[in-house]
Amino acid sequence: MSEVTTTDLYEVTMAMSYLREGMRAPATFSLFVRDLPPGRGFLVAAGLEPSLDYLSRFRVGPHDVEEFAEALHRPALDLELLLGLGFDGEVRAVPEGRLVFAGEPLLEVTAPLPQAQLVETFLLTQLCHQTAVASKAARCVIAAAGRPVVDFSLRRAHGPQAGFQAARLGALVGFAGTSNVAAATRLGIPASGTMAHSYIEAFPGEEEAFRGFARTHPGPVTFLVDTYDTDGGVAIAARVLKELGRGPGCAIRLDSGDLGALACRARDILDAGGLTDVGIIASGGLDEYAVDELVRAGVPIDVYAVGTRVGVAADAPYLDAAYKLVEYEGRPVMKLSSAKVTAPAPKQVFRRSGRADVIGVWNEDPPPGAEPLLCTVMRGGWGTPDRLSDARARFDADLAALPASARRIHSPEPIRPVTSRRLAAMTAVVRRRIEEEIRT
Amino acid sequence: MSEVTTTDLYEVTMAMSYLREGMRAPATFSLFVRDLPPGRGFLVAAGLEPSLDYLSRFRVGPHDVEEFAEALHRPALDLELLLGLGFDGEVRAVPEGRLVFAGEPLLEVTAPLPQAQLVETFLLTQLCHQTAVASKAARCVIAAAGRPVVDFSLRRAHGPQAGFQAARLGALVGFAGTSNVAAATRLGIPASGTMAHSYIEAFPGEEEAFRGFARTHPGPVTFLVDTYDTDGGVAIAARVLKELGRGPGCAIRLDSGDLGALACRARDILDAGGLTDVGIIASGGLDEYAVDELVRAGVPIDVYAVGTRVGVAADAPYLDAAYKLVEYEGRPVMKLSSAKVTAPAPKQVFRRSGRADVIGVWNEDPPPGAEPLLCTVMRGGWGTPDRLSDARARFDADLAALPASARRIHSPEPIRPVTSRRLAAMTAVVRRRIEEEIRT
Repeated sequence: MSEVTTTDLYEVTMAMSYLREGMRAPATFSLFVRDLPPGRGFLVAAGLEPSLDYLSRFRVGPHDVEEFAEALHRPALDLELLLGLGFDGEVRAVPEGRLVFAGEPLLEVTAPLPQAQLVETFLLTQLCHQTAVASKAARCVIAAAGRPVVDFSLRRAHGPQAGFQAARLGALVGFAGTSNVAAATRLGIPASGTMAHSYIEAFPGEEEAFRGFARTHPGPVTFLVDTYDTDGGVAIAARVLKELGRGPGCAIRLDSGDLGALACRARDILDAGGLTDVGIIASGGLDEYAVDELVRAGVPIDVYAVGTRVGVAADAPYLDAAYKLVEYEGRPVMKLSSAKVTAPAPKQVFRRSGRADVIGVWNEDPPPGAEPLLCTVMRGGWGTPDRLSDARARFDADLAALPASARRIHSPEPIRPVTSRRLAAMTAVVRRRIEEEIRT
Repeated sequence: MSEVTTTDLYEVTMAMSYLREGMRAPATFSLFVRDLPPGRGFLVAAGLEPSLDYLSRFRVGPHDVEEFAEALHRPALDLELLLGLGFDGEVRAVPEGRLVFAGEPLLEVTAPLPQAQLVETFLLTQLCHQTAVASKAARCVIAAAGRPVVDFSLRRAHGPQAGFQAARLGALVGFAGTSNVAAATRLGIPASGTMAHSYIEAFPGEEEAFRGFARTHPGPVTFLVDTYDTDGGVAIAARVLKELGRGPGCAIRLDSGDLGALACRARDILDAGGLTDVGIIASGGLDEYAVDELVRAGVPIDVYAVGTRVGVAADAPYLDAAYKLVEYEGRPVMKLSSAKVTAPAPKQVFRRSGRADVIGVWNEDPPPGAEPLLCTVMRGGWGTPDRLSDARARFDADLAALPASARRIHSPEPIRPVTSRRLAAMTAVVRRRIEEEIRT
């Protein structure tokens, strides 16, 4: 499917009109999240890499024009101004892995108006859900407090593409691996997983299943122990591991029931058998709340596998993000109706150590000691690829500097950025100008 | 990206072991949703068409084997038994568009064990989220009570693929159109959408914007009226439409604020201008609850555009679905641990007019007058494609027969299927057999 036609129809009707009216002057759009969802103290900027990849390949081809024409029930000739239109604009963005807050632009596009408009939908589709999922995954890493977290979300993700991104975003915030083979090999992250309940059930009993698995897999193995009676399953796993002389790197996995109690008993059984180096992996409906509870209770779980709730960001599966025109032809613009007022002009976010971020105008002087968050990542349609490991390092550094109140799992308090004097003054002027124009 | 390697690693480790142990006998897996999420009175079976498409193309190629080997850190030679493995099994499934309830198989696969196992993850990835989204979309259709509903979800969907599916699922439950160009043209559904706030802001004022748009688009147009002052925007839109002699098929769109009050005032303004045939489209964070409230209040909104919350099924973004081995080599199997007990054996669901569904064994005699829901949709790896219009007709028929208590928007009560005597007896026997085996 063409990425160019993966767009809302109105991007096309607007671009057609802009081209026909000769409105090709530079426009700046700002993509930001209006408010953080409840239960989020921060967001992790994510989705930029696939967005830049899209922009660098964006070009309206003849088949795209035919599809647009078909959707509009108009002859392709009416859309010929769109043919060959590519993206050769500038993109300023918060690099992936950095923490962001309400109202801070994740990305700003400056390009001839028809170009900047046509790419709206696809950019939102990438940045909204990836930032939502990365933010959820980051909270799992916090909850696990140093214990490895792995991604098991593919089967419940919103399709294969979303599953791939979830694996990538997990790695971005420090997950130790993923069950997703395609993602693991493409992204160079460890693949994780061994057996399902069906495997056990296909054999006459648990012992035969464990022995069968070990015959095929000579390295470290993980035995799933909760198919019938969990304590019994642990005892059988321990016996088989011991007889086979397997230990280091091996583990048992608990996937159901009272994970805290089962893990404590499993640890006792393993230790009693001298298998102190056999780990315990927990899975089954885990999210940051469940992990936090288990970790705080001191439960001897070595690895947390999170899936469903993290891969879909279950408690906040979307972000209230917008892609707003903030300047056209050098004229700052804004929307006034209802509560959805947006500040005009291209912006910059200034991060200050120990204080709230400042949202200001792009080219204003930074407050003393402040670090600008948005970087120019694409010029003339050309960008430089980023590395996942760099994004991960940025995430680690930002998380380390995040106040405990925003980090905490329950009722976190996000940082509320302040507006610079210059942006506030400009907003007031633009608002006055528009209000006068409306009156006349 | 290969669909074959878009899978959990454990499918591969298990399949390797099955092949090496010579375990290629027929296995039956049953895919079902354990419990309906709160706020759902029914589920709409969806995702079968892409699943069958996947199965019909499934074949492990040399690159897939290399990827599997890389993920496992083993030489490709160790995985050579997987090379060329395709899917030539049988699939029984509930056709798309039918309503289903907790515990009812959406799909059952019978195939040689390694095949049936390897396709697990991808099937879950398709069926879980598509059934979740279709079910949410269906509730919007109910709430709109005959008024057209259109899909605006692409920008907040979990990636382009999920956005495409959301458009398809909307059409499946009777949406009148989608904003998604690629989906509209590929699926033959009407494309919908005209202008964003940015379009208005790029012009000196609303009137210039509306006139500019009408110049490019000679047919029916929809003007977005809430950029600055909504009542004022409606008045300008009415004046422009009147002067241009446009009316039938045209509309105004409200995207923010108190949609009920704004729509009533907009209707008055339009009618006062003689524009009784200009419609009102509402959008902006709508879901079935918001639509229901507006419809019940008698608000003069003609078309409801739903997006974000529907495309991600915001209040239930995943389903607790499982793909469980229920029979291997003619031997019914089940899992016993904790609450996640699954009934053994291939199944059939019998629907009875005015009474709860019966979940029984595949080949048992139907209760008098009952209709079996699962059909054989694939044999020997070959299936017959279904049409979206047929799925839609099935949905319409099932919805018409659904009790009001399951249909309602607030606190719906799902139908709770009962278990046939034969399935209950078989479950008891298998449980006893396994418990005895565990004891010895």
